[in-house]
Amino acid sequence: MINIKRLNTHLEELSVIGKTKDGGINRFSYTSDERRANERVKQYMESAGLTVHYDIVGNLIGSQEATDDLPTILIGSHIDTVPNGGKYDGSLGVLTAIEVIHSLKEKEIELKHPVKIVAFKDEEGTRFGFGMIGSRAVAGTLTSNDLKKVDNQGISIEQAMRDYGLEKQHLQSAKIENVKCYLEVHIEQGKVLENNEAAVGNVTGIAGPVWLQFKLTGLSEHAGATPMNQRQDALVGASLIIAEVEKIAKESSSSVATVGKLSVKPNGVNVIPGEVEWTIDIRDIDEKTRDQVEQEIRKFAKKIANDRQLHLEISVLQRVAPVRCEDNIQDVIKESIQELGESIVSLPSGAGHDAMQFKNRFPIGMIFVRSKDGISHNPREFSSEHDIEKAAKVLYLTILQLDKN
Amino acid sequence: MINIKRLNTHLEELSVIGKTKDGGINRFSYTSDERRANERVKQYMESAGLTVHYDIVGNLIGSQEATDDLPTILIGSHIDTVPNGGKYDGSLGVLTAIEVIHSLKEKEIELKHPVKIVAFKDEEGTRFGFGMIGSRAVAGTLTSNDLKKVDNQGISIEQAMRDYGLEKQHLQSAKIENVKCYLEVHIEQGKVLENNEAAVGNVTGIAGPVWLQFKLTGLSEHAGATPMNQRQDALVGASLIIAEVEKIAKESSSSVATVGKLSVKPNGVNVIPGEVEWTIDIRDIDEKTRDQVEQEIRKFAKKIANDRQLHLEISVLQRVAPVRCEDNIQDVIKESIQELGESIVSLPSGAGHDAMQFKNRFPIGMIFVRSKDGISHNPREFSSEHDIEKAAKVLYLTILQLDKN
Repeated sequence: MINIKRLNTHLEELSVIGKTKDGGINRFSYTSDERRANERVKQYMESAGLTVHYDIVGNLIGSQEATDDLPTILIGSHIDTVPNGGKYDGSLGVLTAIEVIHSLKEKEIELKHPVKIVAFKDEEGTRFGFGMIGSRAVAGTLTSNDLKKVDNQGISIEQAMRDYGLEKQHLQSAKIENVKCYLEVHIEQGKVLENNEAAVGNVTGIAGPVWLQFKLTGLSEHAGATPMNQRQDALVGASLIIAEVEKIAKESSSSVATVGKLSVKPNGVNVIPGEVEWTIDIRDIDEKTRDQVEQEIRKFAKKIANDRQLHLEISVLQRVAPVRCEDNIQDVIKESIQELGESIVSLPSGAGHDAMQFKNRFPIGMIFVRSKDGISHNPREFSSEHDIEKAAKVLYLTILQLDKN
Repeated sequence: MINIKRLNTHLEELSVIGKTKDGGINRFSYTSDERRANERVKQYMESAGLTVHYDIVGNLIGSQEATDDLPTILIGSHIDTVPNGGKYDGSLGVLTAIEVIHSLKEKEIELKHPVKIVAFKDEEGTRFGFGMIGSRAVAGTLTSNDLKKVDNQGISIEQAMRDYGLEKQHLQSAKIENVKCYLEVHIEQGKVLENNEAAVGNVTGIAGPVWLQFKLTGLSEHAGATPMNQRQDALVGASLIIAEVEKIAKESSSSVATVGKLSVKPNGVNVIPGEVEWTIDIRDIDEKTRDQVEQEIRKFAKKIANDRQLHLEISVLQRVAPVRCEDNIQDVIKESIQELGESIVSLPSGAGHDAMQFKNRFPIGMIFVRSKDGISHNPREFSSEHDIEKAAKVLYLTILQLDKN
């Protein structure tokens, strides 16, 4: 069905570009390493018979025309990395898409729909702290204001694009219209498939995070001289809330909620904490459930603050809308998985992906590949040849099926 | 009974020595400011008719002989401070003792027991991170090894003593023998008296702290990609334990337990905490109760670690034995409080004091003075003239009563 040897060779070849001393990869947007990687992928696209060009923000696009006048099947991912990243995150999706189209071409199977494969510019946001530049441009939501964001050298995205050789043009001209669907293969970055002994998975949607900042203020007093019943201990209050965050998320069945960052003041062994600040990251592919979890957490926190004479402040750091994978596409993916004799595992994506940008623009579907130990954003990131082959085959069957209608 | 105006004048005069720009006081051991303070107090002692000398570690001692051959009534406190400290912590105890003896002398009341008033060297431990040098010497527990401790300039206690003009002598010669009892007036440094609307209080004992260091290790994973039921979140585990620490201490009725210091790793908004370290400070005047609280906390923490597949390490940072005030002395203090028409409030001292050093050596008793808002170790530390007068009178009556037997 597909040529796993060729796909593997491409993965290995690409992984050498931007290699770090620590065995990882550094490929940041609009840098020479990232350009070299794009040029290499361009060759693979051309070998697969695609017509290749760079759009105005630097997205690498391989196109295949079709006989019928139908909307485009868009497939993609990214080839930029986090600092010292792994070789699968992003690259696997781009190379798998190319391999599938290459294989179809070799089998002389003609698709009714035109196809575009995109290696999106800067998904990770490593350089400018602002990711998904390429997919935002394709969705038509990238603004000239966004391009003012700077890297830690003070170079703006706009400047970086100019230095990269891109001419300034109207951003809306990067928008891709008349799209039938968007498909993406990506490593899971978690352990759900591993725990289910599944090579691949059908993604139900991409969870959107709400990031909240909590600040609880009590009274910082002597740990020895203040009786237990006369305390306004901000850390005990925070602890009760943090324990409840887990409970509320568990009871929601689909949401995840995490307190990842926390600081205590004054932070002395013999001083009652007078102030504690922490963050809560809440995600769900269902916005309503997520918002309900948020409300329950807020309500519980307020109760604790009231009961304990603590002062509570909550601010929103970010609020991103989740996006669902289209039911019909999910069905096709599940059927493809089944056709390969694999068990069907459906799971949400907790991490963000380029596909998120297409919410309300066109339907999306995603195929996850098992990640060893759930590790990603790390040189130890690993997906086996076996699992990659399964994912490529699922994509192959999915495209064929979607092309029928 | 006592001359509050004179006592107040002494307090004000002494507070000027070592004054900081921030309105606080810096008087650290074996410095010129601390020497000036000692010389000033020496004058007050001499005015009160005491025979004054410095012992081999620099304790300032004012002695009064007696007709009968009875054991000594020892009274004291300290005149060194924490950085930018207040004017009551320590100084009040020394000056009150001098005022009481001065007043007795003026009234021509002769005590049967000899009296020694001591301004102990370096109670706070500010300079060498090792406090109660003077009281340790008087108790006979100061070792030449202790004197090797250095300040942040690398100067050892031994060297500082030499620079101060003290000749090296056998440390045991500082030991004071044949003591009937030790008495100390001190500010409360908490809000128990304030909450009970009491000017003074009878101290039941000095709580000894156990300081524990906890380290809980889980698994640091992606906050979005790890389902709630597959997590080993070290911070949720820590939170459950911290909430329980409060509960266990509350149920013990006499112990206090505080998590004052805590750190989270890796401390990222979207990363599940893989490691949390925190301290627990447990205090009680009853060692058995304190140890039981410690055991209950350890047991609960182990259970949480087991239930949640977390790895727990506990180490002991320090373990100081608590000391009880002698029942007979407590009774005399309580009677004295009552005689002054005040209500009797008995409370433990959560903070450490020189009196601790006399455990198993001779009986102790302490009188606390109400601290406004419980503030100490701060320029805003304040006890009113009214409350100080009450405390001086309680000491006066207590000495007279104890002198009878």
